[in-house]
Parts: sequence; C-alpha cells; structure tokens
Amino acid sequence: MRLRNKPWATEYIEAHPDVIIPNPEDYKGKWHEVFGNPNPVHIEVGTGKGQFVLGMAKQNPDINYIGIELFDSVIVSALERVVEAEKPANLRLLKVNGAKLQEYFTKNDVSRVYLNFSDPWPKKRHAKRRLTHEGFLKLYESILIDKGEIHFKTDNRGLFEYSLVSMNHYGMRLNYVSLDLHAEMPEDNIMTEYEEKFSAKGQPIYRLECQFTAK
Amino acid sequence: MRLRNKPWATEYIEAHPDVIIPNPEDYKGKWHEVFGNPNPVHIEVGTGKGQFVLGMAKQNPDINYIGIELFDSVIVSALERVVEAEKPANLRLLKVNGAKLQEYFTKNDVSRVYLNFSDPWPKKRHAKRRLTHEGFLKLYESILIDKGEIHFKTDNRGLFEYSLVSMNHYGMRLNYVSLDLHAEMPEDNIMTEYEEKFSAKGQPIYRLECQFTAK
Ligand SMILES: C[S@@+](CC[C@H](N)C(=O)[O-])C[C@H]1O[C@@H](n2cnc3c(N)ncnc32)[C@H](O)[C@@H]1O
Ligand SMILES: C[S@@+](CC[C@H](N)C(=O)[O-])C[C@H]1O[C@@H](n2cnc3c(N)ncnc32)[C@H](O)[C@@H]1O
Repeated sequence: MRLRNKPWATEYIEAHPDVIIPNPEDYKGKWHEVFGNPNPVHIEVGTGKGQFVLGMAKQNPDINYIGIELFDSVIVSALERVVEAEKPANLRLLKVNGAKLQEYFTKNDVSRVYLNFSDPWPKKRHAKRRLTHEGFLKLYESILIDKGEIHFKTDNRGLFEYSLVSMNHYGMRLNYVSLDLHAEMPEDNIMTEYEEKFSAKGQPIYRLECQFTAK
Repeated sequence: MRLRNKPWATEYIEAHPDVIIPNPEDYKGKWHEVFGNPNPVHIEVGTGKGQFVLGMAKQNPDINYIGIELFDSVIVSALERVVEAEKPANLRLLKVNGAKLQEYFTKNDVSRVYLNFSDPWPKKRHAKRRLTHEGFLKLYESILIDKGEIHFKTDNRGLFEYSLVSMNHYGMRLNYVSLDLHAEMPEDNIMTEYEEKFSAKGQPIYRLECQFTAK
C-alpha cells in the first residue's frame, strides 16, 4: 500500500475540503448546492489517480463530475492533479467506499456512473465484489435517474464477459459495445491511467454503454 | 463462385436425397418423421462445408442436426464429407435460403440455432442482411421452442459487437460470452472451417449463447 509512503496524505486531503468533500452525507439529495448549478452529475467509482475524471471535467464544463476513491494513498494523487489544474468548478472527489453510495446519494442525484478498469476479482467466490455484480447494479439504479447510464471500460476479458451477462440479466439495455476501443479511438476518448498502461502493451480495451430500463 | 468448377454438383446433390432433402417444405411441423425419433432438432444457418454440423452430429447422437446452406457449390463439399462419414442418421442438409426458414419450419420445430462465422455485411446499409439482425431473430423465434437458443461464433469483431446489442434489444437473455474462445477452449468445441483458418492466424474467436424469453 502506498499509504505508508505518504504520511502527509491525510493532512493534504483535509487541507482541500473544496475538492475532497469531508462530509458528503450532508449533500445527499442536494448536490446542486455543492456545484451551484442544476447540471447533471456523473460519478466515477474507483477513480484511482483521477486522470479520467479530471479530463472529463475539463472536456465537459456543463456536467458535474464526482470521482470516488477508497484509498487515501491513491486519491491524494488525484487531488494533486486537480489542484494543479486549478480546481475545475465542476469537479469534486469523495474518499468513500463505492459499496456505500446510498449514504451519499439518493434517487435522481446521479445521471451516469463511470466504471474504469475496476478490480476484476477473478475468483468466482469473490463475484459479489465486482463493481458490475447485481448488488452494485441495484445500488447504482437506486441513485440514478430513470434510464440512467453506466459507461464501463476495462482491459480485463473475464470481467467484461461477466459484466455483459450481469447487465443483460439485470434487464439493462445495451447501447454500445466495443471489443477494441483503440482500433476505433473515438476523438473524445479520455484515457485512464490503466488504459494508457494496458493499451501500450497492445491489449484490447473493451468498452460498453448501457442503461437501466423501466421495471 | 466455385459452382462453375463443379458442373456435377447438381447431379451429385440429386443423387443423395437421403442427405440433402429435396422437398423440405413437406416436413414443416413434422421433422420427427424425417429422423424417425422425437429428439430435439438443432439447425445451423450458413453451414458452409459442413465440418461443424457433421462433428456435432457425431458428438451428440441424441440430437438431430440440419445444416442449411444456400449455394450448390458449397453444400456439395458438405455432402461429400457426410457421405464419407457414412451418413449419420441424425444429420440432414438443406440447400435453401436461411431468410426463408418459415417455409420449412414452424413454431417448436427447432430447439437451437447455430450461427458460425456468418457473413459480416459490414456496411450499415446492409445491416438487415446480418443473420443476427432483428428480422432474422424474429424468424428464428417463430420456429424455435419457447426459450429456444442461439449459439453464435465468429472472428468478426464488428458483427459480434452488433449482435450483442441486437440480441439485447430484442429482449434475449445472454447466457454465455467468450471474447477469446480459444484461450479457454472447451473440450467439446467443434471447430468450423473458418474457425480453423482465423484462429491459426491468432485472431480471437468470439462466442455467445443466448435464448429467447417469454414476451
Ligand atoms: C484498477 S484501479 C483503476 C483506476 C482508474 N479507474 C484507472 O482506470 O486507471 C481500481 C481503483 O478502484 C478503487 N476501488 C476499488 N474498490 C473501490 C470501492 N469499493 N470504492 C471506491 N474505490 C474503489 C481502487 O482503490 C483503485 O484505485
Ligand atoms: C463465411 S461462411 C462460414 C461457413 C461455416 N459456417 C464456417 O464457419 O466455416 C458463411 C456461409 O453462409 C452461407 N450463407 C450466407 N447467407 C446464407 C443464407 N441466407 N442462407 C443459407 N446460407 C447462407 C454462405 O454461402 C457461406 O457458405
């Protein structure tokens, strides 16, 4: 864990409450107060070092972004990046557990969930931990608007195969699939740290967009 | 077209009515009469030279197989193979157009449809010709049992991406996806001619199983 190498992390995080919101439960149902506008909110679960969510915030000023990351040692790198970019007004970070989103968000708070290179948890007995497991889909649905979307990228074949099946079984509508994103490379694609690493090795990057449907 | 090189094709086909059924419309709703048993019928649309359907028939004697191929010049190679294998009792071929399945089959005649390395028709304006287009799914549904299955293999990325979306939009249930079949290589996998060719080049083979659901 890189945490041990960063004794200053906690202090640095606490010194930037305008970026890493210290009390996110207070904004449940009223995230527009944080951003000072009624624009749609897109969240990324497992933000890592924040390259994606920062790039998206700069690319799309009319969307509000929230990057969610569990570990101090990791989110602190995202924070450094955001500070360096002069803290875009439409971007915040949360140092919380993605498995507890319902503590910070309520129905209709979020329009889209991004999952990028989520931990694969390849063992069958760990399937529940995959961020595309039914339990997580239920969680996302409970905080998303109707027809809210999930956009998912990964290099991990097993996780992508699993996710296609899981989302289909949940009754989600699949709007887009690419089994080699970089063969097409959409102009507006923002690379994540993991995406840069794995695509450089020549591995295909998988991507999908899907949405919840009326039940 | 290889037809021109095989002037004997028509004659050879007509000489084996016990393999290539000359009047398949007569068996609509009563394929058990052809096979002399009530076993499930699996069809392959676009059988090519028949390696897959013959291999399956030998591997699974309790399933009846029908390979469907449009072209004389191609089906004649399948016929040669079947004759050489001493005409397994659970295998027939049809020289008909897969777009007209409803002329030869009725609801509940078929339990499973195999599609292997179907022509990709990459141009958008040709999408309707893809064997996984909504129009074809409707056709398969109309001759399949309830919860009837489609099993699909291809090396073609665009066609596989398209098919995942098309089947999802049709409301089909996805039961299995592999984005690199040969990395796992299930023991019972029977290779098609195209599969041998493309996997030898190192291309990933995609595979899915899905089924129709009650509407
Ligand atoms: C494999 S990394 C990918 C990072 C980044 N998204 C990328 O594509 O470069 C997965 C990240 O998700 C974080 N993570 C895993 N489980 C989480 C959870 N339950 N809540 C929040 N973050 C989580 C990990 O700490 C890690 O930083
Ligand atoms: C690309 S080849 C694949 C052959 C074989 N399935 C394999 O995997 O090696 C596609 C085959 O489908 C046949 N085909 C295409 N459209 C068809 C249709 N509408 N009805 C029947 N056969 C068709 C073609 O003639 C060709 O033999």
